[in-house]
Parts: sequence; structure tokens; C-alpha cells
Amino acid sequence: MAKKSSKAGPVPVTQPLSELLRLPAGTVHLGELDSAATTGFEGGKSDAEARTAALEPELSDLQERLYAAGRSGEVDAPKVLVVLQGMDTSGKGGVIRHAIGMVDPQGVHIKAFKAPNEEERAHPYLWRIERELPAPGMIGIFDRSQYEDVLTVRVNSLVKESVWSKRYEEINAWEDGLVAAGTTVIKCFLHISSATQKERLAARLDDPTKFWKYNPGDVDERSKWLAYVEAYEAVLERCSTQRAPWFVVPSDRKWYRNWAVAQLLVEHLRALDLAWPPAGFDVAAEKVRLAAT
Amino acid sequence: MAKKSSKAGPVPVTQPLSELLRLPAGTVHLGELDSAATTGFEGGKSDAEARTAALEPELSDLQERLYAAGRSGEVDAPKVLVVLQGMDTSGKGGVIRHAIGMVDPQGVHIKAFKAPNEEERAHPYLWRIERELPAPGMIGIFDRSQYEDVLTVRVNSLVKESVWSKRYEEINAWEDGLVAAGTTVIKCFLHISSATQKERLAARLDDPTKFWKYNPGDVDERSKWLAYVEAYEAVLERCSTQRAPWFVVPSDRKWYRNWAVAQLLVEHLRALDLAWPPAGFDVAAEKVRLAAT
Repeated sequence: MAKKSSKAGPVPVTQPLSELLRLPAGTVHLGELDSAATTGFEGGKSDAEARTAALEPELSDLQERLYAAGRSGEVDAPKVLVVLQGMDTSGKGGVIRHAIGMVDPQGVHIKAFKAPNEEERAHPYLWRIERELPAPGMIGIFDRSQYEDVLTVRVNSLVKESVWSKRYEEINAWEDGLVAAGTTVIKCFLHISSATQKERLAARLDDPTKFWKYNPGDVDERSKWLAYVEAYEAVLERCSTQRAPWFVVPSDRKWYRNWAVAQLLVEHLRALDLAWPPAGFDVAAEKVRLAAT
Repeated sequence: MAKKSSKAGPVPVTQPLSELLRLPAGTVHLGELDSAATTGFEGGKSDAEARTAALEPELSDLQERLYAAGRSGEVDAPKVLVVLQGMDTSGKGGVIRHAIGMVDPQGVHIKAFKAPNEEERAHPYLWRIERELPAPGMIGIFDRSQYEDVLTVRVNSLVKESVWSKRYEEINAWEDGLVAAGTTVIKCFLHISSATQKERLAARLDDPTKFWKYNPGDVDERSKWLAYVEAYEAVLERCSTQRAPWFVVPSDRKWYRNWAVAQLLVEHLRALDLAWPPAGFDVAAEKVRLAAT
């Protein structure tokens, strides 16, 4: 993750983005991380859109291999979970539309977590999350996640500090279990500046085709910006683990953000090194049976 | 739907495909419906792929309007349900990947109905279907559907004839209720020939990257081809209603099939004539509030 003060030249694109954006251990000051950076990318908007689209064939091939592994019935078939977090207007929906939208929708399970309903509130906070985890061979997408239970819950004091403060370690242990059971967890923090959020909210108020995206509550939440920054810094500092690290995706530029998440997904799928499942039947015998029909 | 014997010239593309493919009332003989036709389309594979891709911007705009209507909280916001049925290898998955895959996945709910599990079998057959109906503003996609209860269930005698024979009228009444409550129902029968199915199954046995798609049970089901034809003919004759007609999509050519389903979806979305929802708040006042942050 590039610091604003960095004087380094362009990063060679041969270095995996998952290394470049992976949050290093240590104290996090969001204000020092450049939300307008284009880490690991050289070029502008049209280059990024072309390079994002160019990822589609490989993404498609890798996803189909993953799906095939899931269908082959092996109990340990891999699963992938992309967690999207970020301030309002940071572009969680845009990433799903433009990056995840390149993947065969049959292999994707998207879940947007809203304020919990009555039944969900009657259970431990991870209960509703567990139920939406991807099945073998599937890519799960969380638009918000378990982290809301240490973000909005903390900022709005929805439970006591003695309760939420224990959750960082609980979430780490829970994610550790997920990874151990074969889920690749890709946690993306879509990082925008306060000025970017203001611009994007203003754009929604200027365009009648975007009124439906605006909610007066957005301004109320915006007034708590600093409290959210603090809560996100705690999440990033305490929950970026070896097995399930956070990736900080500079998201002031939508085209970079979309490319970066697609690229992160491709790199993680590649790392699974997925072979096509072998036939679970006698191929020659089946050819004979089919020919006889 | 073109008859094989038709000598008519090319159909002008200005006529809606939903009129051309809509099954007319009367007796259905699948053998007389040309599964290799390209009704309403002039040109070949590359034209079709280009024209399918060219539908994307309008499809995207229409779907966003639908989604916006759903988000605006109006109880009568429209819903769309695409039902995909067809013999094995007819391309239900291909349609979802190539046609439905053009739509923002956040606005799409896909459900593939497999053999019912124990809990599902303990309920009336429409119970599990109801649970997967699209919410307001959503496009639901059924890969198989309630029709399996008069198709595989009938062909394999899973219930008595006195039971399944009542279901045609039950399904009609149930769909009538759906439509009355604001769901646009688009039922697509993906029509392939027996020879096409044989080719596609053989292709799966010839390509190790496709073994996972093959199941020895496919040949068993194929041996019941004529019984399935009869069961489909009964469905098409008895359940193509005024409010929820069947569209017979010639599907021997994948490129035509994908274009046709995308085109049918666009035409039905256009017919909803969706306006952007008005602001549910005071726009000027919100601009002032936002500016003050």
C-alpha cells in the first residue's frame, strides 16, 4: 500500500497485487494511506477498463475449475469468500457489478448484510454470517460482513464496549477456522477520502436517476466519519492475520478499484492451482452406452 | 415459432421476439417445431454474439430501474421471473452464463432446482418454489422449476397419475396469482433435438475439461426421450396461459438461444415502462445538510 509521501517510481506490474495491497503489520493511520493511489497499475481509466475486461477469460476459466471441483463432490473442494467493506459510497456495489459481474453468476453467491432483523438479533452475531458462507466450489461475496459488528455497532454503541471489544479476537479465530476448512478469504477495504464521499453523495442529489441511491441517513453516518475511521483502523490493525489478511484497495478512482478487486480475485484463484476433476465413471464404457441410444 | 415446413421469408426483426416465440394455443408436436431455427434473427454466430453483447447497455439500464423500484419500498414494485426448462444439455446453464450474466448480479436471484431433499418432500411441491420467488425489484431465474413436478415426476412415476394430472391446473392458478401480484413470468422452453443432445453428451465424454459435466444418469434419462417429449408437450399445451405463456426457444444453436433469451428479457423489461423512483426526501434540504458536513 503506497504511502502518500512515497517518492518511489512506478511499481513493476509483475509483482502480485496481493503483495502490494496486503496490509503490513503495525499501526494503521488511514489518513496516511493514499485513497487515490493506483498501486501496481500504470495508465489511466481507459487502460484500466480494458485491462479489467481482459481478465475475464482467465477469471472465467478459473471460476469454472473451482465450480467443477465443487460439483465433483469432494468434501474438501475449495471455497472462496470475498469480503467487501468500506465507508458509504466506497463502491461495494460497483465492485460487484463491474468486477464480480464478469464471473458466471451460477458460481457466485452474493449476500448484502443490512441491519440485522429480529430473528438475527436473537442469535450470536456470527450466526447469520455462517449461514451465507460459500458452498464448495462457490465464490461468496459479502457486501458488508461480520465486521459491521465492530464498525457500525461500535460507532453507534449498539452493544457495550466490553462486548464488541472481544469480537476482534473472536472474528480472527472464526476466520482461522474457515481458512483451515478450505476457504480462501479475501478481505478488501475500499478506501476513499471524506472528500470523495461528499462528491459522490452530492452526485446522487444532482441526478434524478440516482435519487433512489440516496438516504438522508447517509449524512447522519457521514457526520460520524472520524469515529468510523477509528473503528476501521482498529479492524485493520487487529484483524489482518497471516491466514486472512486485509487488502487496502485505494478506491477514489472507480476504474482502479474495479480492476484491483478483479485482479486480487484472479491471483487468489490462480493460487488454488485447480485441476479439472477426473472422470468418476468409465469413459470408454459411457461412450458405448451413449452410442447405443 | 417457425414450423419446419415453413416457406415464409425472413421475419422482419421489428416484430417483437416475444410475439414470434410465444406458443400459440392448440396441440403441440415438438417434432414439428424446428429446434435449429433462428426465428426473428438474420445472420450467423458472430452477428448473434455481437447483437447479444449490444443488448447489454439497455438490459443494464432496465434492470437498474427495476432494482431501484424495488429499493424505493413501494409494496407493488414489479418482479420478474425467468423460468428455464429443457432437456438435459439444452443449455439452461449456458443461458444463465451468457445472457443473464450480462445483468448486474446484485439484481438477480438464481435458483437451480435439483431433486427435492427430505424437508422439501415433506411439503407440498410448490412450497420450495415459493421460497425462491424474486423479491420486489429483483429478477429471479429458475433453472428447472415447478414444472419438474409434471416432467421428471410424471416420466419416472414418482407420484400417482391422479396426483400429477391435477398439477397442470394448480400451476396455472398459482402462476396466475403471481402475475396478479406483480410478477412478470417469462417461461422459456429450450428446444433441442435428440441428435443435438447426443452430440453434446458425446462432447462431454471427449473432453477431459468437461468430464465433470457428465453423469452416467444422463444416458438413462436420454433413454426416456420420448416420454419426456410427451410430458413437455402436455406442459406446453396445458400451461401456456394468457398471463404466463410459454416461449419455445429453438436451442440447437447456442448463439441464437442466448440472444433469444436476452432479447425476451429486454422486451419484457421494456414493457414494464419503469420510471426512476422520485426522491423520498427534500432534495434541496439534503443538499444543504450535505454541504454543511
